[in-house]
Amino acid sequence: MSKGIISKDEDYSQWFNELVIKADMAEYSPVRGCMIIKPYGYSIWEKMQAVLDKMFKDTGHSNAYFPLLIPKSFFSKEASHVEGFAKECAVVTHYRLKNDENGQIIVDEEAKLEEELIIRPTSETIIWNTYKGWIQSYRDLPILVNQWANVMRWEMRTRMFLRTSEFLWQEGHTAHATAEEAVAETEQMLDVYADFAENWLALPVVRGRKTANERFAGALDTYCIEALMQDGKALQAGTSHFLGQNFAKAFDVKFANKEGKLDYVWATSWGVSTRLIGALIMAHSDDAGLVLPPKLAPIQVVIVPIYKHDEELENISAYVKTLTTELKAKGISVKFDNRDTQRPGFKFAEYELKGVPVRVAIGSRDMQNGTVELARRDTKTKETVQQEGLANVIEGLLDEIQSNIYSKAYNFREENTTEVDTYEEFKRLLDEKPGFLSAHWDGTPETEQRIKDETKATIRCIPLNNKQEEGKCILTGKPSTQRVLFARAY
Amino acid sequence: MSKGIISKDEDYSQWFNELVIKADMAEYSPVRGCMIIKPYGYSIWEKMQAVLDKMFKDTGHSNAYFPLLIPKSFFSKEASHVEGFAKECAVVTHYRLKNDENGQIIVDEEAKLEEELIIRPTSETIIWNTYKGWIQSYRDLPILVNQWANVMRWEMRTRMFLRTSEFLWQEGHTAHATAEEAVAETEQMLDVYADFAENWLALPVVRGRKTANERFAGALDTYCIEALMQDGKALQAGTSHFLGQNFAKAFDVKFANKEGKLDYVWATSWGVSTRLIGALIMAHSDDAGLVLPPKLAPIQVVIVPIYKHDEELENISAYVKTLTTELKAKGISVKFDNRDTQRPGFKFAEYELKGVPVRVAIGSRDMQNGTVELARRDTKTKETVQQEGLANVIEGLLDEIQSNIYSKAYNFREENTTEVDTYEEFKRLLDEKPGFLSAHWDGTPETEQRIKDETKATIRCIPLNNKQEEGKCILTGKPSTQRVLFARAY
Repeated sequence: MSKGIISKDEDYSQWFNELVIKADMAEYSPVRGCMIIKPYGYSIWEKMQAVLDKMFKDTGHSNAYFPLLIPKSFFSKEASHVEGFAKECAVVTHYRLKNDENGQIIVDEEAKLEEELIIRPTSETIIWNTYKGWIQSYRDLPILVNQWANVMRWEMRTRMFLRTSEFLWQEGHTAHATAEEAVAETEQMLDVYADFAENWLALPVVRGRKTANERFAGALDTYCIEALMQDGKALQAGTSHFLGQNFAKAFDVKFANKEGKLDYVWATSWGVSTRLIGALIMAHSDDAGLVLPPKLAPIQVVIVPIYKHDEELENISAYVKTLTTELKAKGISVKFDNRDTQRPGFKFAEYELKGVPVRVAIGSRDMQNGTVELARRDTKTKETVQQEGLANVIEGLLDEIQSNIYSKAYNFREENTTEVDTYEEFKRLLDEKPGFLSAHWDGTPETEQRIKDETKATIRCIPLNNKQEEGKCILTGKPSTQRVLFARAY
Repeated sequence: MSKGIISKDEDYSQWFNELVIKADMAEYSPVRGCMIIKPYGYSIWEKMQAVLDKMFKDTGHSNAYFPLLIPKSFFSKEASHVEGFAKECAVVTHYRLKNDENGQIIVDEEAKLEEELIIRPTSETIIWNTYKGWIQSYRDLPILVNQWANVMRWEMRTRMFLRTSEFLWQEGHTAHATAEEAVAETEQMLDVYADFAENWLALPVVRGRKTANERFAGALDTYCIEALMQDGKALQAGTSHFLGQNFAKAFDVKFANKEGKLDYVWATSWGVSTRLIGALIMAHSDDAGLVLPPKLAPIQVVIVPIYKHDEELENISAYVKTLTTELKAKGISVKFDNRDTQRPGFKFAEYELKGVPVRVAIGSRDMQNGTVELARRDTKTKETVQQEGLANVIEGLLDEIQSNIYSKAYNFREENTTEVDTYEEFKRLLDEKPGFLSAHWDGTPETEQRIKDETKATIRCIPLNNKQEEGKCILTGKPSTQRVLFARAY
């Protein structure tokens, strides 16, 4: 089959790339590291946006929009922030093109900006510069704002959806009167992300906190959700940062509290991106193509007629019309593929590739028997079922598929999470059975860095509500009070 | 009142600026010509997006996403296109910052791009470069794609919402097998825009075509909708372009037709932007603040309790709960402002400023009498009405306000559209009674340019289905077959 893709066991990385392209999700663009999100891929992003946006609004947030470009001087006001992003910034230096003497289009050197502008890699700086004007007293707090935007990080090694120079995301930026409130917000948004990952993406996640080495540049504390992909590598699926008063101090944002005393404002920021589409693909799909959780699938049910003569199609179509109406009334998206330019087998393969959760095939014999053939994408099983009550059957099946996809990913993660007590075992498992490795660590950045340098594994997180137990660091043998979660990661 | 704004008769331009800021719609940012869209302003944009997006999907379009940055060489492939945009392009030249010897953050000159990248002012070039890979035969057509995105045009004179260096918009880009199909698409999308302007923005528009001077850079034909603002200046509210085969030729996009013959693909593009928010404000608002059409108002009904004692508030609140439930069941957005930190008069002024269409005030006497005070923002009238059946009354009132705002704008436009037959009269009216001037023109770009140079008035459009009549050009006296619509414009 022309649309065949390589097996994921043979070459997982190549499998992912081929799948993204052949399933019409995205393609590379002529601009280094930037991708084009095609309509099918974008429609999944739209579904994610709709769900997340409602979750944000239900927790009291509003959307706003801040400039794409950030003055270089703003960007460098918070020391560790600029340190973290300076090496991957796209810089705007001019604002005009002109024709040279040969009629070629060149940059007009006379139109040089007085101060260079950075394309936002994230918006803390421009937003906190703005919040300075919005906040005078505790009455102006909290500020609960989110932005849907594109951002740019000039990455050297890119991969579609997972790491691209430009990506789409949302970034929440909140301002609070107390540290406690800001921490509560940080934790609340982590819960929102975990809820979204588990109940919509069907992706089980570990909630935890990053070590100092892995924190967001400018944060006091970074919370994250970590998921396991089918090749045993971890993927950070969302982060929520407690920024303390760092940005308020950098931009001099103070408020008068109830006692009339001035204090710096407390901040959080949190974000998820189009990377989630990469996670969705990597976590569930197989060698036949995408496996999409029904709640995020652009098309939930496809109906394929099987016929030789036009009158057969007419007969089938009449029934399909009724079925479609019933499904739509239940809020189920459905496509009737009655193209006469492709054979049913071709269509079956195409919808497998695109991960449509449920396929209904109907032939003339089915019409005589009052049946259809019902196939599910996740298990690749099919059965003959009655037309009578079919819409209800499909509704239940979609729920079952959603929960089956989650269970499969959950079981995979459980099977690939191992407690390890020696460095030899740690290194052996990373090569032979990669996954989450739960191990003791002496708590120092130096040890973490050495393990990373030697094994490419990083501490993905210190799980929330982690069990406290005495142990010895796998590398140094120094005492430790809890296990942390290591893995190689995307 | 601290939030008072200047009268629009005194200084229309200043009135607009003050209104935008005091109604919390937007503010200027530290980046030249770029604005910050605040939550209240952004929520109107979100409503616009939701309605337009549905209209686009109902007419068969899907969304996708293309890169922010365009290689300079692509950008200059279509001659008149680059000519039109080269003078206002933000140019990315470097991709890294570094510390200099003094620890200052500077641009790393070693990280210079091989080819400069342009921040998209519009995406025809990068999209047609992509379509080349998507189109082989007539079976791949039409392509009906839209993108929601930010774009950048480095404008020298900016004004919030109306002309900003960065703005948000949607840009549709379609590909067709025949010129007829592409023209039909261009016209269809113009109708979508006109429908949206009239039935949602409550903004009457003239549908027409641009003259060659005013066409989009690279288009064969530009269709537009033109609206009249309260100061008699015109505002282009949306454009739809028939691009012919210009971009297909520039990017070598050919398809095999049904006969197997290769031909260049036909193109359209069409867009509306956050400029529509400026149009909305300028068309309807008054000296007390915004007047928003109910269909796009973020809050449609505000309820203000009037009370001295807490038990009065309790009593009122119980009723408000019922009313709110009834209104929400009708899909009406409602806010109960029970803040005890502000007096009712302050709240009234605030919601007037923010253009909330309907205000319900309830005091203890109202509760005894089973009444409320119902005020409408558009006419600034109020009356006492029964609580019984109030939700239905409000539902009807919102419709009435929507249609009244439209009628008012329509009548204003009719009163300020004048047929003019001499250049003296033309110039006199532009100063004394600005508006649309319908006049004969000899059809040459030179005459159009001279009139623009001498009066600042441009031809806004040649209306669709224009009446054909013999006449003489107001400037040159040469023969003309139809009147065209002139105005000074934003």
